Amino acid sequence: MNISFCCKDDNASLWIGELQTALPQASVTLWQPGAPQADMAVVWAPPQQFFDEQPQLRAIFNVGAGVDALMKLRLPAQALVVRLDDAGMAVQMAEYVCHAVVRHMRHFAAYEADAQTGRWQRQLAPDRSAFPVGVMGLGVLGERVWSRTPKGLSALDCYAGLAALPHFLARCRVLVCLLPLTPDTQGILNRETLGQLKRGAYLINVARGGHLVEDDLLPLLASGQLAGATLDVFRTEPLPPEHPFWRHPQIRVTPHISAGTLPGKSIAQIVDKIGALTRGEPITGIVDRQRGY
Amino acid sequence: MNISFCCKDDNASLWIGELQTALPQASVTLWQPGAPQADMAVVWAPPQQFFDEQPQLRAIFNVGAGVDALMKLRLPAQALVVRLDDAGMAVQMAEYVCHAVVRHMRHFAAYEADAQTGRWQRQLAPDRSAFPVGVMGLGVLGERVWSRTPKGLSALDCYAGLAALPHFLARCRVLVCLLPLTPDTQGILNRETLGQLKRGAYLINVARGGHLVEDDLLPLLASGQLAGATLDVFRTEPLPPEHPFWRHPQIRVTPHISAGTLPGKSIAQIVDKIGALTRGEPITGIVDRQRGY
Repeated sequence: MNISFCCKDDNASLWIGELQTALPQASVTLWQPGAPQADMAVVWAPPQQFFDEQPQLRAIFNVGAGVDALMKLRLPAQALVVRLDDAGMAVQMAEYVCHAVVRHMRHFAAYEADAQTGRWQRQLAPDRSAFPVGVMGLGVLGERVWSRTPKGLSALDCYAGLAALPHFLARCRVLVCLLPLTPDTQGILNRETLGQLKRGAYLINVARGGHLVEDDLLPLLASGQLAGATLDVFRTEPLPPEHPFWRHPQIRVTPHISAGTLPGKSIAQIVDKIGALTRGEPITGIVDRQRGY
Repeated sequence: MNISFCCKDDNASLWIGELQTALPQASVTLWQPGAPQADMAVVWAPPQQFFDEQPQLRAIFNVGAGVDALMKLRLPAQALVVRLDDAGMAVQMAEYVCHAVVRHMRHFAAYEADAQTGRWQRQLAPDRSAFPVGVMGLGVLGERVWSRTPKGLSALDCYAGLAALPHFLARCRVLVCLLPLTPDTQGILNRETLGQLKRGAYLINVARGGHLVEDDLLPLLASGQLAGATLDVFRTEPLPPEHPFWRHPQIRVTPHISAGTLPGKSIAQIVDKIGALTRGEPITGIVDRQRGY
């Protein structure tokens, strides 16, 4: 079996070495233009040329939770597109989101500002029942985030479909976006939807920059409809140094670090799935190419 | 039954009103010098004069988790000293501690500094197995903190007694102090004990300022033995504006807000306990005055 590795990753040799060690019968190589046909591919943000030259791929393993970049390319029709299940990303995502929720709810930004001037000033204690947290996208990551969100906030009520969206939004004081990016969810965080949140709501986007209409955010903050936002993903990454989000007092920017792919766990999972496919057994994580996730 | 309320609290009238409503047969009054004898007292940091004038108290309810301030006073010998069980403080404490652990482990301070200059720079992802979190004081609050600490860090191993302390400390990369303050634990966070933590450890003190030998902290940070500290409690509170902890780049100061007493839940608990005592039933939370907690 030939496995082609095509990732924008500094650790390519680590990945290839570990895949090769775990699959001694296979030949694992770093893709280069003109490389021989492979049976399986392990990719992250590959160029179109990769797929144009590899029409016989049986399976394409996406290193990461979101396959939106892959879905923009022309892929071999017969190839299974497989995303990672939780490979250590969910715990990171839960940490990140809980940190952001608690930081907002407990006024830690105000305490940090006060520390600069030696000001001992307690903020009003939050009423947890007034902080319902809504998670858009209850997949592998969203479930874990929900289960780790500070308890006593609210029970898990589920809403599905666009028709239910206004009712869902009207209940949220904190909105966490963990949706897959598809044509349906592109720009779903906009003036209209965010305007339906409880006044003074807080936005946490840890999905894709394409979910947020960036130009709508600043007026929502200025009007007080939103109290603030924690953003880990952006339309353009790296976020340009001059972008107004960086230094905005109500916006927290992090450089797309909410949940990183852990090579060890990801490789173990890919190796297991390759084994199952080879034996003709079912695997999880197959992307519905029609749906886009 | 006479219940005397003696607290340094701006909300005295709220407390007295709610206690009175819940206990219509009792007379609930704000203590003033020369007030008539009471059967029960609800107190927070009362003056010695209060107890000198109230020798017949049957029970003293401490509003808060720590009774160290009370234990320094001469109390009526026959009076039960009762502390609050978890009355909404444990969830707050868990939030605070988890926030501090994740903030340190995930480098959020570095990301906040980078945001000021628009610098998109990912920090090294942490290896969770290298971050064992030790909680000193596995009481009502400590248990909850432990159970909410990011999972996958380590299973719960228990150590008890001073003899086990070096072995415990040697395993901790994060140390959380949630001990009661007693003569035995006064100054327990010092050069010697903190020097036994893993090099580059992180300290979180949410118990009492008296646990930490403050003069030992700065040299431990300067030498790299400690990477940083989050401190919510201090020998002198409010922490004086000129205190070096405020602006130290490796120290995070908050104004004793990790877990506040919630009047509603606390009053309900005190009312239940008064009812049980009146009916001669056992109650939880009775302080061992010999032990001091």
